[in-house]
Amino acid sequence: MSDTLSQLAAVLEQRKQASADTSYVASLHAKGLNKILEKVGEECTETLLAAKDCQHSEDKSDLVYETADLWFHSLVMLSHLGLGPDDILKELARRFDLSGLEEKASRSK
Amino acid sequence: MSDTLSQLAAVLEQRKQASADTSYVASLHAKGLNKILEKVGEECTETLLAAKDCQHSEDKSDLVYETADLWFHSLVMLSHLGLGPDDILKELARRFDLSGLEEKASRSK
Amino acid sequence: MSDTLSQLAAVLEQRKQASADTSYVASLHAKGLNKILEKVGEECTETLLAAKDCQHSEDKSDLVYETADLWFHSLVMLSHLGLGPDDILKELARRFDLSGLEEKASRSK
Amino acid sequence: MSDTLSQLAAVLEQRKQASADTSYVASLHAKGLNKILEKVGEECTETLLAAKDCQHSEDKSDLVYETADLWFHSLVMLSHLGLGPDDILKELARRFDLSGLEEKASRSK
Repeated sequence: MSDTLSQLAAVLEQRKQASADTSYVASLHAKGLNKILEKVGEECTETLLAAKDCQHSEDKSDLVYETADLWFHSLVMLSHLGLGPDDILKELARRFDLSGLEEKASRSK
Repeated sequence: MSDTLSQLAAVLEQRKQASADTSYVASLHAKGLNKILEKVGEECTETLLAAKDCQHSEDKSDLVYETADLWFHSLVMLSHLGLGPDDILKELARRFDLSGLEEKASRSK
Repeated sequence: MSDTLSQLAAVLEQRKQASADTSYVASLHAKGLNKILEKVGEECTETLLAAKDCQHSEDKSDLVYETADLWFHSLVMLSHLGLGPDDILKELARRFDLSGLEEKASRSK
Repeated sequence: MSDTLSQLAAVLEQRKQASADTSYVASLHAKGLNKILEKVGEECTETLLAAKDCQHSEDKSDLVYETADLWFHSLVMLSHLGLGPDDILKELARRFDLSGLEEKASRSK
C-alpha cells in the first residue's frame, strides 16, 4: 500500500497541468480554492453519513467510497496550495514517533 | 513515506485495546462512533479555515497540522468500523489504475 | 421579520406534498434524509467560506445568500422529521429566558 | 414565535459588548471569526448526527437541541460580521415571495 499515495500525488501533479476540459482535477484547480474546499466539506459530510449507515448494515462499501473521495479531494487541496501527502505523513510520523518505531523494529530483528 | 500509514494503522489498533484513561485513541473508541465522527467533522472545518488562511499567508504549518488531524481521526473512524487505510488506498488505486501505472513504469525502465 | 419563518414553514409543508417533478422541496423529501443532510452540510461549508471571504471584502451578499441556504435546508430537515422552526425557537427562548425578557419589557412600560 | 429571533439578536448585540470573562458570546467574539466558524461547523456536524439518530428513535430532543446550537452560533457569526437575522429572513422572503403570500392571504380574507 505504501506507494499508492506517492503515485496518486504524482498523477495529481500531472493533471494539474492538464486541460480543464478533459481532466476533473484540472477543472477543480481552474475553479479555484473555494470550489476545492466545498468538495472537501461535501465529501466529509458524505463520509459521516456513510459511517452512520454502517452502524445498521454489514455493507461498508459506501464508507470506503466516501472516505476515498474525502482523501482524494484533500490531496487536490494540498496540491493546490503547494503541499503534498509527504508533508502530512511527516507530521503524523513526528507525532507518533514512527521513525522511532521503525528503528525499534529494526533493532529487534 | 510509504509505510507511515501502515505503521500508524498498527499503532491505532494497539491503542484501541489500551485503557481509555491513558490513551486518547482508546478514549475515543470508548465514547463511541458519534464522538469520533464529531472529531472528523471538527477537523474538517479547521482544515478548511486553515486552507483559507493560507491564501493570505506564506506559513502553511497550520494547514499541515489540521490536515494531519483530519486524516488521523478518519483513520480512527475506519478502525472503529473494522476498516483500515488499505481499504481506502485500494479504492484509490483502482480508480486511478495505479497498479497499471506501476506496471507501465516498470516496463518503461 | 417575525412571521417570515412561520410563513416559510407553511410553504415548506405545502411543497412536501407537491410533485417531486415540479418542486425542489418535494424532490429533496423524495430523495430522503441523507440527501437533505448532504445539502445542510454543503450549505454550512459554503457559509463558512463566504464568512472567511467577508474578512477581505466589504460585500457581504454572498454570506447572506449562503446563510439563507443553510437555514432553508435546515428547515427542510426539520420538516422531514416532523419538526418545525417553533421547536427550535422555543428551545432558544428557554435558554435565553426570552419570555422573561418579554415580561420584563412589558413591566417596564 | 415571531419575535424570538429579534429578541435573541438584541441579546446577542448586548453580550457582544460584555466582558469575555462573564459572557460566552463575548468570549467567542474575543477569540475571533475562526473560533466562531469552528463552532458553526461543529454544531452542523452534531445536527447531522442527531438527525441520523432520529431515524432509529422516537426521541427528537437531541435534534432540537443541536439545531438550536447551529442557529445560535450562526447568529453569533452574523453579529460578528455586522449582520443580523433580518438580513437572512429578508433574503428568504424574497426567494419565496412571502410578502406576496401575505398580500394574497390578506386579499382572500
